[in-house]
Amino acid sequence: MTAKKTKQTAAKALSKTKLTAPTVKVALLGFGTVGSSVAKLLSVQKFPGIELTHVYNRNVARKRESEAAKFVPKTAVWTEDVNVVLNSDVDVVIELMGGMIPAEGWLRKAIASGKSVVTANKQLIAYKGAALAKLAAVNGVQLVYGAAVAGGVPVIPGLAQGLGGDQITRISGIVNGTCNYILTRMETGADYSTVLADAQALGYAESDPSADVDGYDARAKLCILSRIAMHAELNPDDVTTQSIADVDAIDFAYAKELNCTIRQVSSARVAGSLIQARVAPMLVPLASPMAWSHGTQNMVVASGRFGGDVVFSGHGAGGEPTAVAVVSDLLAVAQGSHAVQLPVRKRNVTGEFMASHYVRVVVDDKPGIVSAISGALAKVGANIDSILQRPGYPKHRLPFVVTTEPCLTSTIHKALASIAKMDCMLEPPLCLQMVDIEDKG
Amino acid sequence: MTAKKTKQTAAKALSKTKLTAPTVKVALLGFGTVGSSVAKLLSVQKFPGIELTHVYNRNVARKRESEAAKFVPKTAVWTEDVNVVLNSDVDVVIELMGGMIPAEGWLRKAIASGKSVVTANKQLIAYKGAALAKLAAVNGVQLVYGAAVAGGVPVIPGLAQGLGGDQITRISGIVNGTCNYILTRMETGADYSTVLADAQALGYAESDPSADVDGYDARAKLCILSRIAMHAELNPDDVTTQSIADVDAIDFAYAKELNCTIRQVSSARVAGSLIQARVAPMLVPLASPMAWSHGTQNMVVASGRFGGDVVFSGHGAGGEPTAVAVVSDLLAVAQGSHAVQLPVRKRNVTGEFMASHYVRVVVDDKPGIVSAISGALAKVGANIDSILQRPGYPKHRLPFVVTTEPCLTSTIHKALASIAKMDCMLEPPLCLQMVDIEDKG
Repeated sequence: MTAKKTKQTAAKALSKTKLTAPTVKVALLGFGTVGSSVAKLLSVQKFPGIELTHVYNRNVARKRESEAAKFVPKTAVWTEDVNVVLNSDVDVVIELMGGMIPAEGWLRKAIASGKSVVTANKQLIAYKGAALAKLAAVNGVQLVYGAAVAGGVPVIPGLAQGLGGDQITRISGIVNGTCNYILTRMETGADYSTVLADAQALGYAESDPSADVDGYDARAKLCILSRIAMHAELNPDDVTTQSIADVDAIDFAYAKELNCTIRQVSSARVAGSLIQARVAPMLVPLASPMAWSHGTQNMVVASGRFGGDVVFSGHGAGGEPTAVAVVSDLLAVAQGSHAVQLPVRKRNVTGEFMASHYVRVVVDDKPGIVSAISGALAKVGANIDSILQRPGYPKHRLPFVVTTEPCLTSTIHKALASIAKMDCMLEPPLCLQMVDIEDKG
Repeated sequence: MTAKKTKQTAAKALSKTKLTAPTVKVALLGFGTVGSSVAKLLSVQKFPGIELTHVYNRNVARKRESEAAKFVPKTAVWTEDVNVVLNSDVDVVIELMGGMIPAEGWLRKAIASGKSVVTANKQLIAYKGAALAKLAAVNGVQLVYGAAVAGGVPVIPGLAQGLGGDQITRISGIVNGTCNYILTRMETGADYSTVLADAQALGYAESDPSADVDGYDARAKLCILSRIAMHAELNPDDVTTQSIADVDAIDFAYAKELNCTIRQVSSARVAGSLIQARVAPMLVPLASPMAWSHGTQNMVVASGRFGGDVVFSGHGAGGEPTAVAVVSDLLAVAQGSHAVQLPVRKRNVTGEFMASHYVRVVVDDKPGIVSAISGALAKVGANIDSILQRPGYPKHRLPFVVTTEPCLTSTIHKALASIAKMDCMLEPPLCLQMVDIEDKG
């Protein structure tokens, strides 16, 4: 056989393989907003070789009668017994239920029975991703979770496939759309409780908004990003969080005077053998990419030793954007296209950052207050960078702001503890870390 | 054997496979800025299982004595005879020479002899990517080119692995760092020829800057992005280009009055069975992500039917950022992690866009000129949106600007042809397409 003939035969074999490639059978666990959008995308786009065969949901009869059910093939099995899925011959399970229990156990069973898993479950992946990935490797199947962070913005595939050659030294970003919606609305003068109520009415925030506003959702995502980008496995519980609930409309006015705005920033950075990590409302320079992010948009900045800063942004949440990530992952699994794997190490976390800080107090104004506050800062060795006092507030309830030169988080907290005890203090002082402009996030 | 034992055996087999995985041998074709940065990244990061075994360059002795040669393993073969590489047992050829000839022939030989190819060669991939990809598939090897567009910004992996589940209907962006450097410098008042000379002195622009400033470099990248994002194979020669060389400092002053700046924008959009595509200096709203991009930064916006706009940005060029893309691709090839493949179709190109236009004329001012110009626009059915005339220019050499409501590119060009012929016209009128704010690029 000539070389040319060999090639032609190879080509024929290849095209034949493609034509006769077995259909990949897919089950959806969860038929809510994202699940039904996944069904829609599969139905509209008709990717060859992919078939939705099972839909699991509690009270499945209601789902089956929903408008979105029209996107599910007539032949699909609807069930409220997850074992119907787990014992079936589906190749890929798409998990969109969220939460640790029962998702973890179900996915372990799916993986053990040779099914690949596509999931958008950030809590599960943040806490159990490493163990599940090991289980998947042992069973020769895939575990992918591109939808777990930043929904339709391909941060995870971009980091894994496109930046594996760099050494990422820092990840920072805006990964919780609910907080970003609240804070960008507050930027224009609205107060926290009004905006939160609006966000709840619009379906952007839960009736118990704690996971979002207190930073637990963002923290899980930050840990996943740390694993993918910096190959660092963190315990999410070790990452300090600060709620956005204490940020007031007045803080946006002061931030503006400092050419800044306020965002919930999730930040993790390699610091020797540790990872500095934190989720908190922070002052962000208006010139930083993170200030561009409005409404429910997400934005992630990855800083590489060789490639510099790379920015990803777009719609971080919502049914269809998240479904784009899920279906993209599904295509990769169906085509046997596994992600680049680099060794991951467990790393300890510190909440200590060297940064400038914004301290806002509300006082019953009397002579000597500025002197007392600056004394408390001087005592811990924190230098004052600016003192701001906007006009128009009553003396007996006066908000004013002190910003410091860079100092450690623990240093400023020592000063805050003594400032908080002062008689004139009408509410606990608010301290926000300030993001450097050099940081670009 | 119990199920548990089977799993343990599988785990052992897997870890054994990893430990004994054969080394992937890599050759560099080209040891310039990017090539030596690739050697550096491999040397510094020591990815297991990857070994640089060959370096090809013309006049190789000089390269071998360069400072960067210290990053190449002592055992590597340096050669100026490409056949030494092509006939060797290397597994992956990294091509960083650029240009069509001889790169195409060499890569065909490499692929035919079973070597995978990683390349940053945008012209080759724009014109011959589809044919080379077919050849690679026939030979069971990989052809990857993440570094061909936007250097260290993982646009190609992000699109392929992360947005395969969406229907991308438009790609637009800033993909030529040289033009972006020139135009952002001109934004602050400098004139084109001064900035071009600076760019040449800094090594950002070639001594013959045509490939950059006239849009041919960006056009190749736009065609590659169209293939990856919209699965549309375009003939690069069919894509209209407009040089940035005709943009004047005065145009930035007028753009600012319109809350815009000027960028070299590459844009491709699905329009029925056609693709609208164009590379040109355009007016970009200051509120658009494309206006954020400064200096040599690149930025690409992909607009999806389901996921909305996704923005990628970062350092588009330079040795180390480009090397990050090359090494990331190399890791994927070495791990057998192939990209998601979706069917690509040849598509015809049109240069017709429905858009507002900015028309700047320089005239020897006489009564009736505005009437004549507006008459020419009215004749083709183009409505005037605004007429701008900044003070301080001499009557006998007066620049002024007319902007139109949206009309077709061919419509405005008909009017321009008759305006250009007017006696008072001191130089050819400049017409720039205006990017909609709704576009976000």
